[in-house]
Amino acid sequence: MRGVIMYGPGDVRVEERENPTIVEPTDAIIRVTSACICGSDLWPYRGQDGNDWPAPMGHEYVGVVEEVGSDVSTVKVGDFVVGSFFASDDTCEICRAGYQSRCVHAVPMGGFGTQAEYLRVPLADGTLVATSTRPTPKQERGLLAASDVLGTGWFAAVAAEVGPGKTVAVVGDGAVGLLGILAAKRLGAERIIAFSRHADRQALARRFGATDIVEERGDAGAEKVKALTGGLGAHSVIEAVGTHESMMQAVRSTRAGGHVGYVGVSHDVSLPGLELFFSGAHLHGGPAPVRRFLPELVDLIMRDEIDPGEVFDLTLPLEQAAEGYRAMDERRAVKVLLTTD
Amino acid sequence: MRGVIMYGPGDVRVEERENPTIVEPTDAIIRVTSACICGSDLWPYRGQDGNDWPAPMGHEYVGVVEEVGSDVSTVKVGDFVVGSFFASDDTCEICRAGYQSRCVHAVPMGGFGTQAEYLRVPLADGTLVATSTRPTPKQERGLLAASDVLGTGWFAAVAAEVGPGKTVAVVGDGAVGLLGILAAKRLGAERIIAFSRHADRQALARRFGATDIVEERGDAGAEKVKALTGGLGAHSVIEAVGTHESMMQAVRSTRAGGHVGYVGVSHDVSLPGLELFFSGAHLHGGPAPVRRFLPELVDLIMRDEIDPGEVFDLTLPLEQAAEGYRAMDERRAVKVLLTTD
Repeated sequence: MRGVIMYGPGDVRVEERENPTIVEPTDAIIRVTSACICGSDLWPYRGQDGNDWPAPMGHEYVGVVEEVGSDVSTVKVGDFVVGSFFASDDTCEICRAGYQSRCVHAVPMGGFGTQAEYLRVPLADGTLVATSTRPTPKQERGLLAASDVLGTGWFAAVAAEVGPGKTVAVVGDGAVGLLGILAAKRLGAERIIAFSRHADRQALARRFGATDIVEERGDAGAEKVKALTGGLGAHSVIEAVGTHESMMQAVRSTRAGGHVGYVGVSHDVSLPGLELFFSGAHLHGGPAPVRRFLPELVDLIMRDEIDPGEVFDLTLPLEQAAEGYRAMDERRAVKVLLTTD
Repeated sequence: MRGVIMYGPGDVRVEERENPTIVEPTDAIIRVTSACICGSDLWPYRGQDGNDWPAPMGHEYVGVVEEVGSDVSTVKVGDFVVGSFFASDDTCEICRAGYQSRCVHAVPMGGFGTQAEYLRVPLADGTLVATSTRPTPKQERGLLAASDVLGTGWFAAVAAEVGPGKTVAVVGDGAVGLLGILAAKRLGAERIIAFSRHADRQALARRFGATDIVEERGDAGAEKVKALTGGLGAHSVIEAVGTHESMMQAVRSTRAGGHVGYVGVSHDVSLPGLELFFSGAHLHGGPAPVRRFLPELVDLIMRDEIDPGEVFDLTLPLEQAAEGYRAMDERRAVKVLLTTD
């Protein structure tokens, strides 16, 4: 099969890889109909993460079940399925508490590289969610978004305790931040302040539900949020970048007793204890337990109630993955979809 | 009047101070019947905080109302009252959300120095809670504990989302940690693991509800909690120290999706973002909004359902405050009560 391999920063190739096979009786093999490139894939692309090269790439996927192991009972051959970037048993105590990304048997899907034609999914029963009908092309894009960026933005909104009557601020105008806006809107937020200085992303932010746009960053951005909220700060702040500056911008945009939901993978973040102490903010985040939300998100997408696939503004065949990475790195694209057809 | 003044690290004196008077119509003047020395008073005593000297000391108090300003309506002369270490209006948006310690008009009581015979309490209506009858000596000690250490331990337990069926770990065996145990027990915790290596504090911890004692600290302590909880960590962890080591011990003792409630005033704490991210823990804390809990705590104490005053293991007249500081500094006493009679 064909699959994406990164050989080092900036060096993305599409190569012949061995087809995956069932290893454990709880595995499923799926034919990946579409995959995508994640903002977090740009960290190694830019040499900002230590990696072992060469590395298969991708952790987001939707597709059709080709084969299942003998212990798999909830999905069957021919099902159209979506899963999260962590395989999980969905039965352990941590999963049952809603933290499937920290399942005691969690397997990171990035290790398999989902930017490929076929994929082995461990713990298929606990990981995959099947649709009841074959999705339309629009729905399929939405489901692919649900695999990570929608699920992550949704978790960030839930972690930030977004709810009716609340003012929400969103740090980060990538796919996760934008879908955090969509989530905040669905969860009933009264006012949604998006930090963005890119016209196209501002437009999408407004389409997803942003009521205010703030172009300032860092402390100036936080001050702007304070000014927009009677000096208090937002009730809920979504952090979807992962730098020290963005985390502090999020904390400083939050009112005392408010909530920060942070999902940007932390890079060089070091939180000053005393400032955090006196902020009075709640902090919660980490790798999103997307599986917790998948049944609900799949339902919303298959009923066409939300269209998170709008974040894909560039679609390329898998063979052109390298161009996809370039486009995202240069911020020419918000999010790149790779098709295997 | 007589009052405690700190002139520098280790230099505590009891001196003649000017009697307070009504300044604002929302003020009350109370005759402080008892005050106490806080673990946080030891930071400046040990030279670990930058301070302006000389400084009046103390922020915990109970007493009898002597005089009220013209706008005060909820307490009257002769009432026995308790308040928190932050005066608050209890009407602003932040107060109504339960964060009175971050009230938009908050006044730190430490600035007045409650280790004295009389005290001016700003925003008396929003700050003070009166008892319906005159407390017994035991109840008075309990109410004094409610002023800070009980209210703070209670907030830590609430911030850590302690509840029925949960396993709670408590970092810190000072008065706040010990009363965090009492709070966890009252809030229905199934299992309470206390970190302590002092026999007297271990005994009090068990009396308040601890089911397990762990003597190890730091990573070894966290590993012990993991071992006691099937490798997962505690659901809820109370942090009541405020050092970098104690915060990391708390985070590392918490299961994915669990909650850390931290109330130790942060000193040299710097939280590593990536570890926090992958911990999956919730973090909430800060200066406790004790006023939120005071009506409930006063009620529990006046009905003799809890006896938080047990943390006071040394009672001295105000004139001997310097000995009280020494006893706490040398850990000869958990908590020192100062009487003005």
